[in-house]
Formats: sequence, C-alpha cells, structure tokens
Amino acid sequence: MDHKSPLVDSKHRICVSQLDLPPRLLLGPGPSNYDSRVRHALSANEIGHLDPKFIDLMNETQELLRYVWQTDNPFTIPVSGTGSAAMEAAIANCVEPGDVVLVGVNGYFGERLCDMASIYGADVRRIEKSWGDVFTLDEIGEALEKHRPSLLGLIHAETATGAMQPMDGIGKLCREFKSLLLLDTVTSLGGVPVFLDRWHVDVAYSGSQKCLSCPPGIAPLTLGPRAIEKLNSRKTKVANWYLDMSLVGKYWGAERTYHHTAPVNMNFALREALRIIAEEGLENRWERHLTNSKALWEGLEEIGIGLHVDEDWRLPTLTTALVPDGVDAKAVIGYLLNNFNIEISGAFGPLAGKVWRIGLMGHNSRHENVLLLIAALKEALKAA
Amino acid sequence: MDHKSPLVDSKHRICVSQLDLPPRLLLGPGPSNYDSRVRHALSANEIGHLDPKFIDLMNETQELLRYVWQTDNPFTIPVSGTGSAAMEAAIANCVEPGDVVLVGVNGYFGERLCDMASIYGADVRRIEKSWGDVFTLDEIGEALEKHRPSLLGLIHAETATGAMQPMDGIGKLCREFKSLLLLDTVTSLGGVPVFLDRWHVDVAYSGSQKCLSCPPGIAPLTLGPRAIEKLNSRKTKVANWYLDMSLVGKYWGAERTYHHTAPVNMNFALREALRIIAEEGLENRWERHLTNSKALWEGLEEIGIGLHVDEDWRLPTLTTALVPDGVDAKAVIGYLLNNFNIEISGAFGPLAGKVWRIGLMGHNSRHENVLLLIAALKEALKAA
Repeated sequence: MDHKSPLVDSKHRICVSQLDLPPRLLLGPGPSNYDSRVRHALSANEIGHLDPKFIDLMNETQELLRYVWQTDNPFTIPVSGTGSAAMEAAIANCVEPGDVVLVGVNGYFGERLCDMASIYGADVRRIEKSWGDVFTLDEIGEALEKHRPSLLGLIHAETATGAMQPMDGIGKLCREFKSLLLLDTVTSLGGVPVFLDRWHVDVAYSGSQKCLSCPPGIAPLTLGPRAIEKLNSRKTKVANWYLDMSLVGKYWGAERTYHHTAPVNMNFALREALRIIAEEGLENRWERHLTNSKALWEGLEEIGIGLHVDEDWRLPTLTTALVPDGVDAKAVIGYLLNNFNIEISGAFGPLAGKVWRIGLMGHNSRHENVLLLIAALKEALKAA
Repeated sequence: MDHKSPLVDSKHRICVSQLDLPPRLLLGPGPSNYDSRVRHALSANEIGHLDPKFIDLMNETQELLRYVWQTDNPFTIPVSGTGSAAMEAAIANCVEPGDVVLVGVNGYFGERLCDMASIYGADVRRIEKSWGDVFTLDEIGEALEKHRPSLLGLIHAETATGAMQPMDGIGKLCREFKSLLLLDTVTSLGGVPVFLDRWHVDVAYSGSQKCLSCPPGIAPLTLGPRAIEKLNSRKTKVANWYLDMSLVGKYWGAERTYHHTAPVNMNFALREALRIIAEEGLENRWERHLTNSKALWEGLEEIGIGLHVDEDWRLPTLTTALVPDGVDAKAVIGYLLNNFNIEISGAFGPLAGKVWRIGLMGHNSRHENVLLLIAALKEALKAA
C-alpha cells in the first residue's frame, strides 16, 4: 500500500468557504421551512441504525405516521429517500408485470405514476383531465368498469396544478372492482384532511418536506392489508432491491434485520416534525392551513391576481396563481428571491409561464407569511 | 371538506418526549461520528433544491468528490439515498438484461451485488473466496477469460470481513477483456488510497457514513466515460426511475432539470465533510487511518485478541477481531454499549459470533479512541 503517495492529484482539491446560506422563506411547492425544534433534532447525537435507542425511535415514528395518515396499517414506515423513492416503492411492490394499472392523469405526478408503472411492466391505462381539474366519482367508476385494473393510482394533491381530488366513494368502488387504491399524499399529508382507512386506501406515500415540515430525504410509505396480501402473493420478485418492502419490512418489523443503513439523522428530524403535528392536533392544523390559504386567495385577488383552480377542489397547501397578462413570470420569481429571500415557483407542462405555484405548507402556513408575500408581490409586479 | 372533523381518531396520537440520545462513540462498521462542523452544516438555513445557491453547492460537492476518488469523471454525484441506493444505481444503469456480470464474492457485499445484478436481468457468474480472503490478479484474469463478462464487480473494502482487495493490474485486464470494472468503495473512500482513474475503474459508489464521516442518507456515485457510453447505448430503459442516471444526470448536469427533490440538508453535510477531507489532504488522512489501525491491531493482540485478516490485505478502516474462545461476542458488545457508550459490531454469515467488527473511520480514526477501546475491551472481557 502506497500511503505516502506522491501520486495524489490535487486539481480537484478546491478550497471552498464555510456554507453561508441566506434565510430563505420557502413558499414554493416544497421544501418548506421547518420549526427550529426540527433543526435541533436533525443534529442530535448520532447513533447507529441498530442501536436500541434507534429501535425505540422507529416505533414512535411509525405510530405518529399512523396518526397523521389516520390509518391502523402495521406497515407504515419512512422510506430512506425522497418522496419519489416512496412513490416508486409503492409501485414496485404492488405492481407485477402484466398487471393492468389505471392512473388518473391531471398533472405531472399522474404522468410520473404512469412512467413508473410502465417501468415495472404494468399494462398502463390512463384517464385524463386537464391540469387543474379533478375526476368525478362517475368518471372513475366508468374507468374501473372499462379497464378492470388491479390498481388505481390517484394523486390526492397535484403539486403541479394545485387541485385536490375529492375522495368520497372511490375506495368503496375500488373494492367492488377488486382494485387496489393507491393515493399520492405528498402535498396533502399534514395539511388537509387525509383519512386513509376511512377512504379504503390500500397504498399511500408522502414526502417529508411539504406539510410535514421536515427536510427532504425521508419519505413515508404505508401498505394496508390488501397491499400486503398482494406483496406476499406476488409471482415475481420485487424488481428493486433498495425499495423491496419484503426486505425493508424485516428491518422495520419485529425481526430488525439489517437491510440498509437508515438515514439516522433524517429519522430524528421526521420524528420531531411528527411530534409537533401530534401536539398541534390534526384538526387544528387542517383549519390553520385552510384559514391562511383563504387569506392568501383573497389577498391575491385584491392585487389583481386570479386563481387557476376552481374553489370546489382548490388545494389549501399549494396555490396556482395566474400570471397577469404581460407579466414575466420568471422575472417576478427572481425579484422575490433576490430582493426579499422569498421562494415561489413557476410551473411546467401546460401551465409553464401561466401560473406561479405558492405553497403555504406546515410550519410556513402562517398569517404573517401571507401578509409579507402579498406586499412583496405588489412590489415585484411594479418592478419586474 | 370536513375540516373540523369529529372523526379524527387519536389512538395513534402518542405523546413522546424530546429526543434525548446518549453520546455514542461509533466504532462499528458505520455510521461513524462526524466533526461538529458537519453537524453545524447539516442544519444550515434550508434552501430549495433549485435555488441558485444550491446549484453552486452541487458543483462544489461534485468537484470535491472527484478529488477524494481521484477521478476526472464529469459524472460524479451524490445519490439521494444511502450506500445501497448508490450500489443499486451502479448496477441498474450499467447492466442490461442478459449481460454477463462477473462478481467477486468474498463477503456479504459481493453477495448483494449478485442479488442486485440478478434483479436487473444479468447472467450472474461468481468467483468465490472465503470471508476474509481476497482475489489474486491471476484468479481474476482466469475468470475474465472464462466468463467474458460485460462487467466485473469487486468490493474494494469488504465491510463484512475487513479485507481489502489489491487493485494493481485489474483495470488493465478488464480493458483487455472489454469488461467494465465496478468497484464498491463504501468502506474505503476517504480512509485508504483509492485511485479510480489510475486503476481504470469505470463505475464506483460509496456511502457517506463511513470514512467520509457524514451522516447516512446520501451516497456518492461516479460513472466514467466507458460506463456513460454503456448507459447511452442501452437497448433497454433503465429499470429504475429514482436511480435512472439518464434522468438524474440532467439535474446534476448543465440542464438542472427537476427530477426529484434532492435531500438538501444531507448535501450541506456532505459538502462540509468533503471540505474537511480536502483541508486535511488525502495523503495525511490515509496515513492517519493506517497509523491508528496499527495501534489498534497491536493493542488487541496485547490483550489476547487475534485478527481475522492476513496483514497483507488487512483493511485499515474496519478490523475484524477474533472473539476469544469461551467469550460471548454479543455480551461484550452489550457491555461496551451499556457501560461506556461504545458501539462495536458483531458479524454475520460465516463470521457470526466469531469476530467483532471494529471501525476506525474518518473522524473516529484517532489515537484516543484506540486507547479507550482497548481499555474498555479489557474490562468487558473480564465482566461479560
């Protein structure tokens, strides 16, 4: 071994300064800011992923996730990746090659579900609505009747459009048609009412960095009894090692068998974020999100900015605000960031350049943020 | 929307106390402890994953990873998961169904490579050595000649056994046989000499929580020109959405196209951990690891504990220490943890109960840790 090697090449040995980041107010589609308690938990004393203290923490986190999701599912865990990893875990474990998978596509994340299901060999069928619209129960019933899928995938809160899918009756229909119901709750969990068990949802996932107000890098996933039955009766192996819940489940279950090293600190942060939600109470939290979003919607309309989504299914956690005629959407975004350290976001697909996406999520759903944003937007519209 | 719902079920709304974790000294196979600078960076001001300030940070992190790996590969990024995710990314992107993949199996992580390659449809061939042994250049040459693989996978530092694979000449042989060379550097990167480009390694990955001394949850991956060529000329799509480097590469490349939300804070921490390495210098860091491990090896032998791996290929970052006859390996581990807050680890597979695994990795490779561990082990052997 050549330990004192003269051969070390230092051309990539750059000298960079200490991280010095501005105090951004994150009012885009996520990540959102988080409570200082979460920041503190994130850098708690590091421990091993098989430490008895970590096992305690795992149990607590699982239980709090059940509360937030309103589910009794024993299989309720944080996946060691961001929301997209949990989304892929949901598909990879519940879909086998040849399965008919029906996806409601009314925005970017429905498209992504189709892509993922197709990677795992599904026969993908789509029902479509325009970006900002939602599906009626009748439309879903007809599609279930026509396609007879083994899984129906819906986006509860479309982060790309700001629309919230009404859930009444869908789960019952899925059971009649013997279809699993998969629900993307990335931008709804912890911000608006989610009742997984009452809605008969079989598979759901979320992200940490939206209404849970935890940094990104860990993502809740839950599998109900019918999803577990599907997993256990698969004819083929799950075609993904990292996200194979038949393996990961042994680490989070009674066995505690090593599968991969859990992102320990991210788990600390998630536990604290969930603890804050349990303290506030779901009803209070949902009420807070709705109240502040209503104030935002009124404030936007007062300064001449319309709203893209019909009030009946408008999402209280992420608002799509119409860019007024003649205004450069990107210039306003840049002005807010550079002058006020406020992040809001543009859109993509058919909404690119037409709407801004404004998040009031979790910790950031506060009246003072609404006041500041409206005032800042007024200035930006004049200046940009 | 039923915001003030009387229907919220509070049975999972448990009341848990503030996180209060003991100050563990992590001398197992990882995670290791990290510098307080890394802890501080981890909870720096949160920013968005498309913020211009984050883009700067991404570039710096990529450059520092090139230094640590001694590679010029433009495609050098941190994957948004733990080391196993980066391992799967390496396989998923560089292996197509039907490809012959040859794996050197001399421990658990070689087995895992076989499992993963098989999931992605490879025709997996194995060369085997006992746990703790390594392959000779001749053995590898013969296997390449016999199997003519499109990819050879080797574990540079076997975390399950404490053996370090000598790399001289292997890369050249692979080029002769037109095989890609994949190298697992999870427990070597930042602790022992790694010269990816000089060794003609085409694909490599690592973990953050070993010798880089950063929390787990982010994992370096690098693809050299021949691996990129393989990726670009695939006949089939990468069968993994989250880890598809043809998509992820557009976020880390010039386009900065959104793929998934990066684990922002974990990136802060990794940048700081790499910055510390660049300040220390690789030669100094390698020397430090070797010196402290030699002290550990001597100290262990002085108290009657033998070493499992031959000194010629013994890994300076992770030592497998032989459990003396009549000693209960688990009892000693428990004693160290409960009495001294020191974590060391047992083993699995053929080494279960026979060795302890002791890591002196990154920040933790310090002489004081050697002194403490030897003293604590002496007590534990008497008491346990």
